Amino acid sequence: MREHDLINWICSQDPPDAATVPVGPGDDCAVVLIGGQAALVTVDQVLDSVHFDLANCGGQAAGRKAMARNLSDIAAMAGQPTAAVASVALPADCDDSVAKAIYAGLQELGAQFNCPVIGGDVAIWPKALAISVTVLGTPADIQPVLRSGARAGDALCVTGQLGGAWQNGRDLTFTPRIDPARQLAGRWDVHAMIDLSDGLATDLRHLCAASAVGASLRADAIPVHPQSDGLIGAMCDGEDYELLFAVSAGDADQIVAAGLAGVAVSRIGEVTAGSDIVLIGADGRPSPLTATGWEHTG
Amino acid sequence: MREHDLINWICSQDPPDAATVPVGPGDDCAVVLIGGQAALVTVDQVLDSVHFDLANCGGQAAGRKAMARNLSDIAAMAGQPTAAVASVALPADCDDSVAKAIYAGLQELGAQFNCPVIGGDVAIWPKALAISVTVLGTPADIQPVLRSGARAGDALCVTGQLGGAWQNGRDLTFTPRIDPARQLAGRWDVHAMIDLSDGLATDLRHLCAASAVGASLRADAIPVHPQSDGLIGAMCDGEDYELLFAVSAGDADQIVAAGLAGVAVSRIGEVTAGSDIVLIGADGRPSPLTATGWEHTG
Repeated sequence: MREHDLINWICSQDPPDAATVPVGPGDDCAVVLIGGQAALVTVDQVLDSVHFDLANCGGQAAGRKAMARNLSDIAAMAGQPTAAVASVALPADCDDSVAKAIYAGLQELGAQFNCPVIGGDVAIWPKALAISVTVLGTPADIQPVLRSGARAGDALCVTGQLGGAWQNGRDLTFTPRIDPARQLAGRWDVHAMIDLSDGLATDLRHLCAASAVGASLRADAIPVHPQSDGLIGAMCDGEDYELLFAVSAGDADQIVAAGLAGVAVSRIGEVTAGSDIVLIGADGRPSPLTATGWEHTG
Repeated sequence: MREHDLINWICSQDPPDAATVPVGPGDDCAVVLIGGQAALVTVDQVLDSVHFDLANCGGQAAGRKAMARNLSDIAAMAGQPTAAVASVALPADCDDSVAKAIYAGLQELGAQFNCPVIGGDVAIWPKALAISVTVLGTPADIQPVLRSGARAGDALCVTGQLGGAWQNGRDLTFTPRIDPARQLAGRWDVHAMIDLSDGLATDLRHLCAASAVGASLRADAIPVHPQSDGLIGAMCDGEDYELLFAVSAGDADQIVAAGLAGVAVSRIGEVTAGSDIVLIGADGRPSPLTATGWEHTG
């Protein structure tokens, strides 16, 4: 959680000039005007022993994850990726084959989404593997979807199934939801969206804070992944890289019926006025939702 | 040198589609079209114990250097910086004040060049401090200057004075040559340019290789910094972050006479046909130039 404190501190500093940076720090991507053209920019790093275990997964999976996390951030804004750059801090005791495998992992997933690796930096040091990737994208005729537009009465929906992702290695193999997000924002009026990296309980809190709203989730509507340790895993494990979004109730019905680019969508609750975030249990009673689960009250 | 082998390997892979990526890996920046608009992109990392010593210099100097190196790459293309994003891998035993100092170092130098920090990623890990910065820029009415346009007969020039930079801490305090580069490319036809990060002897080799030319430097024309351990330091120390560029002989005379945005310029030699790179000593005899100096022959 220290990361979030520091990020909140950074977001509390003087914002950049809104004339050239319409969206600054605090959303899934920044939006910056380059020669008058809006570009999406996101940066995310993966670190050995934190985001992957190099000895177990190898360089290719580490590189793939570095690219995938960034593509997921582009998806969360309904953007189209354009290109990526990467810096790799390579341990001195790593074979060159590890570096080449990292590049292959970055490049192969990037190529699937028309996101070539166009530049990079490699340095060798006596510490552990760190990979930082920056992905640029374009809204490409779709207004970037921010975290901040959810309104009381909106339906909350998620793609896919949640929980148990990193325990089962899905964090190394997931497909960034670029195509579902493009289809969603191309056809419907999406009020707010975020990708689920920290877990539904935490990321819903981010979306609600940005939109200055509350939320009410229905426990029996959460799409719990078969690999999840039940509802608590689906709420709190993180690393799902699915999309959470807010749309009108009518649109939600259509979207759930149609799915998005072959991915199932679940309607999991509603946006509410105020700031309370609650989970309604099978017994119909609401419990305050926290970052680590929910508090059984009363 | 292993870094260069890996970078050369990456540059030897299938290049990205030139229609959207006019300049791929291998120059100081990549050039990518975003919605039809050319953007410059560069990424560079600084690592504790390799590029700085956190215990001695503190977070602010480390952050400043991370930003400065990237701005120097934008300068090498004669670009105008637009915005930066940064990822910081912070050691678990670092105080939050270190993270805030890093941000301040990034932000303060960025602000001097209209390059706000618009996004970032902070993660805490049990290893050492790693900072990766990506800077976006725009050619802004000036065609990006590549490494590859030097022609036999061109004059070779450098800004400033070379040598002893990292031994004396100038690598932590240098001013990226954005303004000199903009003035240079705005007024004259610059055939090729590179920033001196690895040292004149090595970076000249990069420029010559990209342009498929050779070069002849005059030892007595090299602007040796008073802090340099003589000519060998000026040729090989690296971390000068000055500009090396090729222009016509006539333009070189004008540029040397005028300076560039208050920075002195020295004409240090000529571009030659072929691929030999030599240093002409005070005695008028040429010695082959290597990455670590020059070979006294005959």
